[in-house]
Amino acid sequence: MSENLIGVDIGGTKILMAVTDTNGTVKKRVEVPTTDDTPGEILLKICSVITSFGRCRSVGVGIAGDVDSERGILRFSPNLQKWRNVNIKKFIERNTKIPTCVENDANCAAYGSYVIDGRRKYKNFVTITLGTGVGGGIIIDGEIYRGSTGTAGEIGHITINPSGPRCGCGNRGCLEAYIGTHGIKNIAKQLGFKADKVTPATIAAAAQKGDRTALSVYKKVSEYLAVGVGSIINILNPDMISFAGGVANNFYFIEEHFRRELAHHSFKTPLKHVKIVRTKNIKNLGVIGAALIFPKEPGSHA
Amino acid sequence: MSENLIGVDIGGTKILMAVTDTNGTVKKRVEVPTTDDTPGEILLKICSVITSFGRCRSVGVGIAGDVDSERGILRFSPNLQKWRNVNIKKFIERNTKIPTCVENDANCAAYGSYVIDGRRKYKNFVTITLGTGVGGGIIIDGEIYRGSTGTAGEIGHITINPSGPRCGCGNRGCLEAYIGTHGIKNIAKQLGFKADKVTPATIAAAAQKGDRTALSVYKKVSEYLAVGVGSIINILNPDMISFAGGVANNFYFIEEHFRRELAHHSFKTPLKHVKIVRTKNIKNLGVIGAALIFPKEPGSHA
Repeated sequence: MSENLIGVDIGGTKILMAVTDTNGTVKKRVEVPTTDDTPGEILLKICSVITSFGRCRSVGVGIAGDVDSERGILRFSPNLQKWRNVNIKKFIERNTKIPTCVENDANCAAYGSYVIDGRRKYKNFVTITLGTGVGGGIIIDGEIYRGSTGTAGEIGHITINPSGPRCGCGNRGCLEAYIGTHGIKNIAKQLGFKADKVTPATIAAAAQKGDRTALSVYKKVSEYLAVGVGSIINILNPDMISFAGGVANNFYFIEEHFRRELAHHSFKTPLKHVKIVRTKNIKNLGVIGAALIFPKEPGSHA
Repeated sequence: MSENLIGVDIGGTKILMAVTDTNGTVKKRVEVPTTDDTPGEILLKICSVITSFGRCRSVGVGIAGDVDSERGILRFSPNLQKWRNVNIKKFIERNTKIPTCVENDANCAAYGSYVIDGRRKYKNFVTITLGTGVGGGIIIDGEIYRGSTGTAGEIGHITINPSGPRCGCGNRGCLEAYIGTHGIKNIAKQLGFKADKVTPATIAAAAQKGDRTALSVYKKVSEYLAVGVGSIINILNPDMISFAGGVANNFYFIEEHFRRELAHHSFKTPLKHVKIVRTKNIKNLGVIGAALIFPKEPGSHA
């Protein structure tokens, strides 16, 4: 049987499709914009790309939102308004005859990182995505941990200060409220960072040039991040934690202070044990993870 | 084979031993004080009680501290200074010829609650012990989740406010620093609670009589507890959370406000799903859990 795996990462603005081997090495890669077409039309296009990839063992689809991974149904997605209760698995299997599974995108990223960054050796594994929002995925004993209703791993919504800033979710003081894009902008403004437009990109560019205010923004970010990650270490005692997402591109601004701060917020034994890394492949992590999630024995997934 | 299980709960002040059935119903129960004797002397006494219990399938030992549960060794215990690297499993098996396993006491409590309170139906399960300290144990897919170095479940050491009060662990603003015994006393003093001695017991007694200050202490406690539990729900998305430990005796002072607050700190779907209960058997939870932890197939544990 072919060891080629297909990954599909359906995002709000683009769809990535790739062929990888079982270690997550990308062999082919196709990117198309996400259009305003119906889910059926978009899925048909995806199927035609899948077919063009030739013989493959499986298809894994990653998508943001509430996914019923046992049945392969996307119940709801915040980024794709038209997609409601779409049986992605059934659609792709009918049209391509290739066994398919569907998974939440944060879980795909975690599984991809578990394979690429941890080489399947670090069995209890957490990936934290630092982007517009702060997300996460948990691997327990080498398998995606979805929790009881599929919403586990919402690491961005740990409360790190109940009287902190309002979060998009309605709560106060979530980790995401501090270090999601919106939170970082607020920190920058509070610290008096000046730029035509205050964005993670302009802050990063300024820090690159040694701008002190920009660097102090990262210092604050690393402190908040350490509070959240410290709790994760004390609760989950994982083997490895990896960072993904856009902000992780600038992990070198954060890393040193983050590690120092982390020692204040987590127990010594689990802290000494856990390896903390930035993922090696930020750009393709989602699509690679999607390709890899398919279980080794087709059919064992349901 | 006999379905009688023996549990041993070795605490800093007393040792509980019990015979239970596989549903955790206690058939016999013996309590002896923990003496200052050597571990060997104490374990010999335990073995003689075990032998007096008659024919039993297994022995499970629960003990506070750093336990290597695969090998049955207590590496270190904060309550039992003389106990260092004691192979409890080997000692008991040699002296009683009954297969034995050893587990951290918080994990025993969680497993006991999983069986007694959840009847093994709520597969992803968290127990939070509210006592001098705040501890926890996690059950994932029906099995104790120990993490990678055996320290998972330190729910008392989630940081709920990085500029909060100093915790015994050295960190600031841990959940335990707010609602462990010491934290509760501080809240009571801050709110002006008056008593000869400010203890959880005097606060509970006053609350029982309708004392407003005492009730407001519980209100604060429930707010802090909700922050920590909200994060647990968002990270782990469990089926059930149970409360154990002394303070849980007064859960009815906390419950209503706690549930209201919890809605602010956790996502709707996992909150709606999770059942939150006080354990039915606070007094014997540790020893029952210890009895129940032994795996169904003797020998499958190592």
